[in-house]
Amino acid sequence: MATITISAFNWVPDFARGQVRDLVVRWALEEIQQPYQVHLLNAGAVRPTEYLAWQPFDQVPAYRDETGELFESGAILLHLAQDRELLLPSDPAPRMQATSWLFAALNSIEPILRPITLMPLFNGDKEWCSPAVASMLPMAEKRLELLSNALGEKEWLAGQFTIADIMMVYVLRSFGGELINDFGNLLAYRARGIARPAFSRALQAQYDDFTGEPPHGD
Amino acid sequence: MATITISAFNWVPDFARGQVRDLVVRWALEEIQQPYQVHLLNAGAVRPTEYLAWQPFDQVPAYRDETGELFESGAILLHLAQDRELLLPSDPAPRMQATSWLFAALNSIEPILRPITLMPLFNGDKEWCSPAVASMLPMAEKRLELLSNALGEKEWLAGQFTIADIMMVYVLRSFGGELINDFGNLLAYRARGIARPAFSRALQAQYDDFTGEPPHGD
Repeated sequence: MATITISAFNWVPDFARGQVRDLVVRWALEEIQQPYQVHLLNAGAVRPTEYLAWQPFDQVPAYRDETGELFESGAILLHLAQDRELLLPSDPAPRMQATSWLFAALNSIEPILRPITLMPLFNGDKEWCSPAVASMLPMAEKRLELLSNALGEKEWLAGQFTIADIMMVYVLRSFGGELINDFGNLLAYRARGIARPAFSRALQAQYDDFTGEPPHGD
Repeated sequence: MATITISAFNWVPDFARGQVRDLVVRWALEEIQQPYQVHLLNAGAVRPTEYLAWQPFDQVPAYRDETGELFESGAILLHLAQDRELLLPSDPAPRMQATSWLFAALNSIEPILRPITLMPLFNGDKEWCSPAVASMLPMAEKRLELLSNALGEKEWLAGQFTIADIMMVYVLRSFGGELINDFGNLLAYRARGIARPAFSRALQAQYDDFTGEPPHGD
C-alpha cells in the first residue's frame, strides 16, 4: 500500500467543513502514519464524468492503491485495517466484534441520527419540519440508549481502539448533536476519540485542503 | 463454520413478514448451501436481557459460529463470504468493488430510501408526513439514477453475483417501492435477484419460522 490516493473536496460550504467524510479515511491513515495523496475536487462544481467510474455517487472519499479502487468510507476503513493490528485485532472473535460495530455505526446509528440533524438544516423554515423531526426522536433516543448500555464503562467498542471507533465517533460527532447529551459515557467516548492526535492531524489536513473557490464566485 | 446459529423472529406483524433482515443472511447461507440453526425470538415480546450481549440493538439477525459472534447483517454477509468465491471474488480488485457496493447498499442507498418508505407507514395520517416525504424524494431519485447509471447493462454490481447484490436487492425490494419504477435496469436487477432459487428458499425459511403467537393474544 505504498501509494495511496484518496479524493476530497477543495471547497465545501462552511457548515460542512470538518465534517466531510474523507475525515474518517484521513484519520485511519494518520493512526497508522501512512502517507497519502489527495485528488481534489470542488463540491460546488460539476465533477468530471470519469469521476463517477471511481465514485458512482459523485461523493468523497474515493480510494485507490496498487491493489484496486474503493468507494464508501466503511469499505476503505476495512481495507486499510487488513493486517493492521492497530486498526483491527487479528484474533477472530474481537475482530468480528469490531466489524459488527463498524457496520452498526453506518447502518444502525447514522441513518437514525442523520435526518434529525439534516432536516432542520435544510428545511428548518418549513412548518412540517418540527413535527417530522419530533416523530424520529423516540427511536433515536432508544437507539442511543442501547449504544450507551453496550459501551458501558468500556474505553472503546471492541476491546481496543479500532476502525469501528473511528466510524462511530465520526457519526456521533457529525450527526449526534445534542441527542448525545443524555448519555455521559457516549459524551466521554466521543471526546476520547476526538482527543486522539491522529484525529487532530486528519481534521487539520481536511481544512488545509480547502484551497478552492466557491462556485459562481459567491 | 460447521455449526452456525442465527437469530430470527417467530412472530412479526404482517407488513414485516418477508422483510425481516435475517432474510439476507438466510439468502447467503442458501447460496452456499450451508445448513444453520435458528434461535427464535418474538418481536412482540420483551427479549431476555442476555440477548443484548449478542445483539446490542435488540434486533435480528445475530450470528454465531465456532469462531465468534456477529451482529449487523452486513458484517455477517462479509464473514460468510470470506474464502467463498461464490459470494465474493478472491481477486483483490473485484473484491474491493464488491465490498464497496456492500457498504453502498447499507449507507448510500438504504438510509435515503428507508424514511420514504417507513414514514408514511407509521405516520401517514399526519399532516406533516406528505411534505416531509416530498422533501426527501429529489435526493432519493438522484441517488437511484446514479445507481442505475453505475449498474448500466451489467447483470450484477461487481462482475459476478456477490454479497453486494444480496444486500442491494434486499434494500431495493424492502425500501425501493415505486421509486424504482423509473429505472428499468434496476427493476430487472431486483427481479433477477429475487428469481434466484436461494432467495426463494430463504424467504420460505423465514415464513416457516413464523410459528409464534402475537403479543397480548391480539
